[in-house]
Amino acid sequence: MSQKLGKASMKPEQPVYILSSASVVGPKEGQGPLGLLFDVVGEDDMFGCETWEDAESSLQKRAVSLALEKAGMQPEDVSFIFAGDLLGQSIASSFGLSSYEIPLLGVYGACSTCGESLTLGVMSIAGGFADKVVCVTSSHFASAEKEFRFPLEYGNQRPLSACWTVTGSGAFVLGDKAACSALPVPGDPQPSAHGAPTGNPRAATGRPRAKITGMTVGKIMDYGLKDSMNMGACMAPAAASTLEQHFIDFASQPDDYDKIITGDLGKIGQKVLIDLLREKGYDISEQHMDCGIEIFDGESQDTHAGGSGCGCSAVTLSAYILKQLEAENWKKVIFMPTGALLSKTSFNEGKSVPGIAHAVVIERC
Amino acid sequence: MSQKLGKASMKPEQPVYILSSASVVGPKEGQGPLGLLFDVVGEDDMFGCETWEDAESSLQKRAVSLALEKAGMQPEDVSFIFAGDLLGQSIASSFGLSSYEIPLLGVYGACSTCGESLTLGVMSIAGGFADKVVCVTSSHFASAEKEFRFPLEYGNQRPLSACWTVTGSGAFVLGDKAACSALPVPGDPQPSAHGAPTGNPRAATGRPRAKITGMTVGKIMDYGLKDSMNMGACMAPAAASTLEQHFIDFASQPDDYDKIITGDLGKIGQKVLIDLLREKGYDISEQHMDCGIEIFDGESQDTHAGGSGCGCSAVTLSAYILKQLEAENWKKVIFMPTGALLSKTSFNEGKSVPGIAHAVVIERC
Repeated sequence: MSQKLGKASMKPEQPVYILSSASVVGPKEGQGPLGLLFDVVGEDDMFGCETWEDAESSLQKRAVSLALEKAGMQPEDVSFIFAGDLLGQSIASSFGLSSYEIPLLGVYGACSTCGESLTLGVMSIAGGFADKVVCVTSSHFASAEKEFRFPLEYGNQRPLSACWTVTGSGAFVLGDKAACSALPVPGDPQPSAHGAPTGNPRAATGRPRAKITGMTVGKIMDYGLKDSMNMGACMAPAAASTLEQHFIDFASQPDDYDKIITGDLGKIGQKVLIDLLREKGYDISEQHMDCGIEIFDGESQDTHAGGSGCGCSAVTLSAYILKQLEAENWKKVIFMPTGALLSKTSFNEGKSVPGIAHAVVIERC
Repeated sequence: MSQKLGKASMKPEQPVYILSSASVVGPKEGQGPLGLLFDVVGEDDMFGCETWEDAESSLQKRAVSLALEKAGMQPEDVSFIFAGDLLGQSIASSFGLSSYEIPLLGVYGACSTCGESLTLGVMSIAGGFADKVVCVTSSHFASAEKEFRFPLEYGNQRPLSACWTVTGSGAFVLGDKAACSALPVPGDPQPSAHGAPTGNPRAATGRPRAKITGMTVGKIMDYGLKDSMNMGACMAPAAASTLEQHFIDFASQPDDYDKIITGDLGKIGQKVLIDLLREKGYDISEQHMDCGIEIFDGESQDTHAGGSGCGCSAVTLSAYILKQLEAENWKKVIFMPTGALLSKTSFNEGKSVPGIAHAVVIERC
């Protein structure tokens, strides 16, 4: 049984379903254009914790709890959890998820991590290694500024090309067709996984949210750019490379998709991506959407090029993209989070900022 | 086709083969008990680079090049590379592997990363998503001390419970049965992948090195220990948890294996692991071996509890464990790298050091 497609892609023989999902964000995200769509909006960025890192961990814990609850599952129903974040040694995941006692496979792809975790999650199910898995990623504005840039107290000026790291976590429960039939239906008593309050849970529908029908794994692309305050431009070549490979492997064209959605290229990266792909013979200007551009109102929220971080694409997928598919506004999209593979050490040592992007095809059920 | 086994394990329907592997280490490792077995021993810890991070990247690059060469492959023959290291944002992998242009799936499991990358690599092949993949991990004593502990120039005293991070990288080319038949045989001209010098390449045999027949994914175990200078004790509960689950899922006993090999528990962690498992009814004292104990001579090399790091288990697997299987001294082993999920931020914020361990079953072909 080959599920390999072309040079860098995979096409599961049976689609894998997004059984449920959840999004937990901070107050700034709650005030943005998608604010009313998120499941939980925190009152402040600390989420009742003592450190920013703990706050980020609590986002993951809450998102997983809520996604499990919506799927009518307990942690022990899940085979594996694919998790990652932006912090050194992925501590937001390690400390956020330990209480679930679910076998963990940690992933790192910078802000492309949501795409990578979904890719591996689909592989585990379509390959027959698991029935149900959870994929979760997070980012936090303050923990990321501390990890990558300046102390917040320093109050540095941000150039207009800079992005604003999203405070948020998105979690997704994936499963095979059999798992869909066990989803709760309206009227079922809602189990409470982990006893966490549920915020604004989506009512049970007995149906999965969408299905994943293909994946393209990205390679590292390094155009030698060194500006960590212009990550969109650093990541755009990786996005262009993965998309081009995707179109080749699937023998598809941009207009085969209702939307081609990147993670956090922002306004500058979007322009670079469209230009790079035009040079390769693909015009995606009609279909392109960027989660980082959608999640904030750059003008009124002072977020400059747009939102970024692992959490940006994850919460936008859960709260907005899947709802558009469910509402039958879109039928088939490419969801491709983009990551910048830098650390403060590599930046301080004068290295470039390579990028990577992983694409998954998500379709209406 | 279910390849799922028990609660946390997987058993591929067809075994996945380790087609080739390579080990690249620093001079201290070259002076240790396994010194003569490694493919490449560097003259100094800088490997011709300007920074420790670049030196670590060069280890990965060299190990992958050599493993591909031994398998008679070029980078474009490989579908995916599963890679990770200990540095924040996995920069050793990002900067070491970009020139290969192989689609990359980044993994993080601290020093358990070699087990995780092999697990995911096997899943990708046994699931039909790829024909050939590379799994690579690395660590470097100096980059790890900088990342986790004190500047080397500070000359801090190390307690006897501390480990010594191994400078090294191990790379493994995995493939299915069909890929085995394409392995180079004696007399074939050796292709040179990436033009790197080959050090001490193993002569072509036309045979894979070993096969992987099962995997058990670990969960995060946190006993609340906070001493980053006693990582063995922090990781031992995770090792015990994964092993117990493995024995349950595979309905096996310790004496079904010739060796049960942990990654870098060291002398203290070894004792804790054996005690913990004895409480659960399993006696592994006869079978247990720890890569961290094997790789250095603690007495003469002043390495205290033993070697550690992602590279420790990876180079020991490539240089020693696989040779023991090939030499028919062992038939079947559990290889289980162990990781401590801390960062300097989590340590400085007073958090505990949770552990994780992933086990793979490796058998003689």
